[in-house]
Amino acid sequence: MSAATTSAVTISTPGYRVLSQADIIAEIERLPDVAAILGGTASDWRIRDVADGYMNAVFIVEGPDGGVCAKQSLPWVRYHGESWPLSENRASFEASYMKRLGGVVGELAPKLYHFDPSLQFIVMQQLTPHIILRGGLIEGRRFPKVAGDVGRYVATAAFHTSDLGVPFETKFEDVSLFARNHAVLRISVDLIFIDPYVEVWRNRFIPEIGAWARAFREDVALKTAVARHRNAFLSNRQALLHGDLHSGSVMVTEDETRVIDGEFSTFGPIGFDLGAFVANLVIAWYAQGGYDRDPAERDAFRAFILDQIATLWTTFRREFLALWEANPAAGDGYPATHFADAAGAARLSTIRSDFVDAIFRDLVAFAAIKMIRRVISYAQVADFMVIEDTVRRAEAQAGTLALARSLLKHPERYPDLGALLDAIPRFERAGLDPDAPSAR
Amino acid sequence: MSAATTSAVTISTPGYRVLSQADIIAEIERLPDVAAILGGTASDWRIRDVADGYMNAVFIVEGPDGGVCAKQSLPWVRYHGESWPLSENRASFEASYMKRLGGVVGELAPKLYHFDPSLQFIVMQQLTPHIILRGGLIEGRRFPKVAGDVGRYVATAAFHTSDLGVPFETKFEDVSLFARNHAVLRISVDLIFIDPYVEVWRNRFIPEIGAWARAFREDVALKTAVARHRNAFLSNRQALLHGDLHSGSVMVTEDETRVIDGEFSTFGPIGFDLGAFVANLVIAWYAQGGYDRDPAERDAFRAFILDQIATLWTTFRREFLALWEANPAAGDGYPATHFADAAGAARLSTIRSDFVDAIFRDLVAFAAIKMIRRVISYAQVADFMVIEDTVRRAEAQAGTLALARSLLKHPERYPDLGALLDAIPRFERAGLDPDAPSAR
Ligand SMILES: Nc1ncnc2c1ncn2[C@@H]1O[C@H](COP(=O)(O)OP(=O)(O)OP(=O)(O)O)[C@@H](O)[C@H]1O
Ligand SMILES: Nc1ncnc2c1ncn2[C@@H]1O[C@H](COP(=O)(O)OP(=O)(O)OP(=O)(O)O)[C@@H](O)[C@H]1O
Repeated sequence: MSAATTSAVTISTPGYRVLSQADIIAEIERLPDVAAILGGTASDWRIRDVADGYMNAVFIVEGPDGGVCAKQSLPWVRYHGESWPLSENRASFEASYMKRLGGVVGELAPKLYHFDPSLQFIVMQQLTPHIILRGGLIEGRRFPKVAGDVGRYVATAAFHTSDLGVPFETKFEDVSLFARNHAVLRISVDLIFIDPYVEVWRNRFIPEIGAWARAFREDVALKTAVARHRNAFLSNRQALLHGDLHSGSVMVTEDETRVIDGEFSTFGPIGFDLGAFVANLVIAWYAQGGYDRDPAERDAFRAFILDQIATLWTTFRREFLALWEANPAAGDGYPATHFADAAGAARLSTIRSDFVDAIFRDLVAFAAIKMIRRVISYAQVADFMVIEDTVRRAEAQAGTLALARSLLKHPERYPDLGALLDAIPRFERAGLDPDAPSAR
Repeated sequence: MSAATTSAVTISTPGYRVLSQADIIAEIERLPDVAAILGGTASDWRIRDVADGYMNAVFIVEGPDGGVCAKQSLPWVRYHGESWPLSENRASFEASYMKRLGGVVGELAPKLYHFDPSLQFIVMQQLTPHIILRGGLIEGRRFPKVAGDVGRYVATAAFHTSDLGVPFETKFEDVSLFARNHAVLRISVDLIFIDPYVEVWRNRFIPEIGAWARAFREDVALKTAVARHRNAFLSNRQALLHGDLHSGSVMVTEDETRVIDGEFSTFGPIGFDLGAFVANLVIAWYAQGGYDRDPAERDAFRAFILDQIATLWTTFRREFLALWEANPAAGDGYPATHFADAAGAARLSTIRSDFVDAIFRDLVAFAAIKMIRRVISYAQVADFMVIEDTVRRAEAQAGTLALARSLLKHPERYPDLGALLDAIPRFERAGLDPDAPSAR
């Protein structure tokens, strides 16, 4: 599980090589449809590095008529370098994810123009003037449609890849394909579900949060709750997930939302994707406390964030149920023939609301697990990192951790959206001592 | 879902052809290792058809020194004929299953000698003088080791393919492979989980059981419980299952047990395999009531069957927990590093017993679902079919159905082995009226 420290970089894709900027221009020159989007000829094109994530090489190529985004996976974790080797096959899965969902999520994702399996190289629609949602949240900018759009995105993607939306043969073909995406999923399993609860070289928490990290390592009940959900993540093939649906995987304008970066795609519990997005909204909420901002403005923005969490869930719930009602015979989960009479129809409506209630419980737990990994584990988030005063940063992080611990250890207190929303402000003054009454 | 009535036979494996007996001899002649087992030359070999199942062509080939079993999957369901086409790729999965578990279950399965993917042709160790367990149960013969051996088989196979026994990368590779076994799994889904609760041409129940079949079609609570477990079967990739572990898939002598016929292999809940075997022991118990046999002998044999059910579960539980304790760091499910201190060790022992308790609950539900399909759905079992008087046959079947209904609708009444064993005799006089007090 700490292969990263010992293995050497190996390449298993025949023909693979890391592309330079000039190579990328040359590749695109050979693709008439993509070249046509750019306009002019190669000498008119400009390329710039926009990689800001942890994983891949990403470039924008622009010509006189338009632009594209080019992405290549490297045989290592880009942010860390060659001492953390990683299979370069992951662009395959990002491309497969985009292809599988292209017809389903419509405008909510960029179009895939080209995928080259031997170079593990993707060319997709350039999103412009969209910005990464996380940056917008840090600046306190409001994107009023994003949470509803993400709720709709998850509802649609999940429904049409689940046993509600497709015959199980289709699902099993998808499961077969995405189950091979395990090189990158080792990162999810370790960074999200294992590292935060042990001492490991990759953990990156600041010293001020040390008491919390220690408390989590020693909290058997917490680790038991995490284990339950780690096992669900590994065993429940409920639907095709994005797998990394945080605020850095969503690009926005005030009117538009686009979900990018499906390289962590896997079959898993639907609440995992919803929880990831909620966790990052919650992080934005707490991080606001560490920013120098007019208090009234901060309160208003925080209220907006809570509103977005509510919108995410209510939109997901409404859209998912609407899809199910509109497609009662699409999958093998609850065949229409088994619930055809009046009593069956009544029961089916209970089954449906129980089904989404269970997704909500998963959302709560996975959100908590995602909050914790963003404070203690390897991949830290800008929301907190921009708070230069590390005590203030730690206080914002401590609130997040206190909420997360309560969500995981006392799920019965959070049966519905209202309970979740009420809890967020309650833990703001948790403080650096994990045993303080304010932290409970 | 009723593709069977409309599709034509198609063959998608290049080079595939249905082998005649002479072809099989010729194939084996080309395999020096197999020919050496038989001894002599092809002219000394005798071949006989032993197909008695529903699905495949199966032959025994014997020479002066020994014998082998040769099995080919056909592009249709053998028992039904060409009007029920079915992908001929299923021998691939049977061979993959044998290969995957060969090193794990040891002597409890026949050895795989040869697999030819283009002919979908398997050659394996001949089991002799082993007989099919179902035949033995019908004759009232005791095989004292079978239930313990099957319990050990499931414990071993399940543990070493689950998130307890292997890193998730290994599991996901296996999941990827076996998720493609969906042509044959359509049969499981339809015959086990869908057909018994609707009117469909394939259902084969006798008229005397009509009131029960109708009651089940109209029982919304029952169909809801079935739906829950159908969804678990399709979504829970807990471990690699045999997928069809009934008494016709187990060959025995008094000293030896061998599990055959893994063509339905799939990832699913461990309780599915255990439940299948329990269901067929329960069927044997009820069927005894329709046989003309000395009452004292019958009672003794029935007591033996109940004992075997107990042995199956206690052996499974003991062996599974022993494997887990002996291999605490083998998988990602419950990493040893998370439960290293005294409090963690204590918690882990609770987690383990909760884990097997949950498997027991699954066993109960899947056993019930399997009992029902063997009475109402397509593939009937010899245990009941040999009862010529259809009223007596229906009475034996009605007991089985009454028990199954109670197990599914009142799981809280069956928290442990004792409760399950007590219930079996209680439903013997259920009778042909599903609403009678005796049936509840
Ligand atoms: N289609 C696009 N149009 C415009 N810009 C894009 C597009 N896709 C990605 N980008 C930019 O490139 C950056 C990196 O992209 P992305 O998040 O996909 O990379 P990554 O290395 O896989 O990230 P992560 O570490 O989150 O997995 C994004 O933050 C965004 O600014
Ligand atoms: N290895 C073996 N040695 C001896 N006999 C065997 C062996 N394997 C199978 N048989 C015999 O062949 C019969 C059919 O085998 P098997 O159950 O594998 O066929 P099938 O058509 O796949 O059955 P099902 O309909 O249950 O799927 C068995 O009942 C058994 O009598």
